[in-house]
Amino acid sequence: MISTRASYRDIPLYSPAKKPCRVDLSDNTNLFGTPPAAERVLRAASLRAVSAYPAGYSPDLRRAVAAYAGVTPEAVTTNCGSDGIIDSAIRAFLEPGETLAFMDPTFVMVPLYSKMNGVKAAPVPLRADFDIDAEALLATGAKVIYLCAPNNPTGTGLSRAAVERVAERAPGLVILDEAYVDFASGPGFLDLARSRPNVLVTRTFSKAYGLAGMRVGWAVGAPALVAEVEKARGPYMLTALSEAMATAVLTEDGEWVKARASEAVTNRERLRGELMELGLRPLPSEANFLMVPLPGATKVAERMRERDVNVRAFQGLTGVGDALRIGSAPWPLLETALAALRESLR
Amino acid sequence: MISTRASYRDIPLYSPAKKPCRVDLSDNTNLFGTPPAAERVLRAASLRAVSAYPAGYSPDLRRAVAAYAGVTPEAVTTNCGSDGIIDSAIRAFLEPGETLAFMDPTFVMVPLYSKMNGVKAAPVPLRADFDIDAEALLATGAKVIYLCAPNNPTGTGLSRAAVERVAERAPGLVILDEAYVDFASGPGFLDLARSRPNVLVTRTFSKAYGLAGMRVGWAVGAPALVAEVEKARGPYMLTALSEAMATAVLTEDGEWVKARASEAVTNRERLRGELMELGLRPLPSEANFLMVPLPGATKVAERMRERDVNVRAFQGLTGVGDALRIGSAPWPLLETALAALRESLR
Repeated sequence: MISTRASYRDIPLYSPAKKPCRVDLSDNTNLFGTPPAAERVLRAASLRAVSAYPAGYSPDLRRAVAAYAGVTPEAVTTNCGSDGIIDSAIRAFLEPGETLAFMDPTFVMVPLYSKMNGVKAAPVPLRADFDIDAEALLATGAKVIYLCAPNNPTGTGLSRAAVERVAERAPGLVILDEAYVDFASGPGFLDLARSRPNVLVTRTFSKAYGLAGMRVGWAVGAPALVAEVEKARGPYMLTALSEAMATAVLTEDGEWVKARASEAVTNRERLRGELMELGLRPLPSEANFLMVPLPGATKVAERMRERDVNVRAFQGLTGVGDALRIGSAPWPLLETALAALRESLR
Repeated sequence: MISTRASYRDIPLYSPAKKPCRVDLSDNTNLFGTPPAAERVLRAASLRAVSAYPAGYSPDLRRAVAAYAGVTPEAVTTNCGSDGIIDSAIRAFLEPGETLAFMDPTFVMVPLYSKMNGVKAAPVPLRADFDIDAEALLATGAKVIYLCAPNNPTGTGLSRAAVERVAERAPGLVILDEAYVDFASGPGFLDLARSRPNVLVTRTFSKAYGLAGMRVGWAVGAPALVAEVEKARGPYMLTALSEAMATAVLTEDGEWVKARASEAVTNRERLRGELMELGLRPLPSEANFLMVPLPGATKVAERMRERDVNVRAFQGLTGVGDALRIGSAPWPLLETALAALRESLR
């Protein structure tokens, strides 16, 4: 074997325990259906969308996002998922060996991206109330700080005061990952991306927007900042169909998305009630899932998979311990999951 | 503006001069149609392919490629285009500051990927006969050597002796980009990926295979080598539809692809004859395009675009000078292009 990067030796692949299950609540996608505009675009797709290159940097989607977010297209970047944007932003703003700070626990890909980019990871535990520890994040001196709001996998929200403190005092880029903002009670932090030179807010079409199979993410930030992020991606990161669908859904299906997100939130709270009756104590959630602290969660999730229900188990999370993450869904699916959980807890 | 990576300051975006033209011969896609299996997959696509995540590392496509290439699935990686694989391979095998050697001229994204990854670029001029200079490439000491066979944008082939010499003596990884191999007279170098521990052969669905809009590339190499490349990509680089289409086309449409590629080659040589009648001297080609040395090529291409024909112009290429790259296509399109060229040369 030829020599590889030393820093690459211990990089694992992303491979949560999983098998095809009839009920899959493990990845927080929209299980309430597919946006109507997406179906229309799919059914009307021309063969040209298959055989010709898409536009280089997704100009149609950038314009649609700009209109949605109240910015110019130069303030918008897109990529193959918002995870692609996070990777590109780390790559564009950190020299290898520099530091990436992030809340802990958070999106599992973030420590992986830090390794992929050869940068130092500085995980900063959440406070006991699950808010970020702004001072501790700033004390790392990291030139890139990653925040996830609402946070995955805890589901908890971040206070505006703490986020603003980080954005104001950070020496470099602040990435605000808002993959789950459509399920939150507040409006999110897009205003910071509009007003501050150092904040990049990322969003995804994979959760509330129902397009996980199409791999589309977007982000908004100051044009000078976005220009750097764009340099760290190749030109054709979205398929032609993905760009067309995302553009149509963002422009036309806002009400559809809002209604389904609201249903997900209602069912999430109903699920909370049932879980509490089982003696469990889910964390407060601003997302479309519940994090349920549970010693031995991995074993429980295995037993649930034997019952054809997939939920995500975490082991020894900082400040949380073992836990299940259960996605919200139409109620019949949650009932099936609850039955499997009851049997698996025995 | 917050501080960015010094090495990022002068990275341009990929933006060849282009406008929508009725005849577009600028990107060497398959203009002879769309593979039948791709159309079938598109028309039968379920909404689940839209709203559920694709499989993490494209297992169906890896199996299909393994069968095609005579290797195990562990010897196969996939990505959003073969350019995504080239980027991932550079990232996985080079520490920033180390050297990437490549033939010059070659695929324009390669010098860009070297900047994106903070590595030193060592371009090595082609020999006068357009073969690679194996000794000069090896003399760079580069831990990654990129070769494009047949080469883009020259269209010229690489001798087996020179490629084998590089593969045998290189101190690290050799990337063999075979985006255009389906148009070549020889079988290509997949055998080296099968037999040697340090050779990664990349292929694309964007050229002969007619799926440029779907963004799919694959590569074959020793499993230990492929495992490193996989670490430098996220899990969901292909849309669910892209994986399904590519798998179907590779499995079922081999004859269709071969027939269209052969037509492209026939028309390319007919085009050569017409160009020679205009006093031009296209380089020998093993690809689906001709490189035509022509002082002032950029101006000529501009005038052709005014006539609704898009070809790619290059300026001051090492050993070639200014040149047009004209893609092969059904003959009526090439006739239109020839008419536009004749008028633009005046």
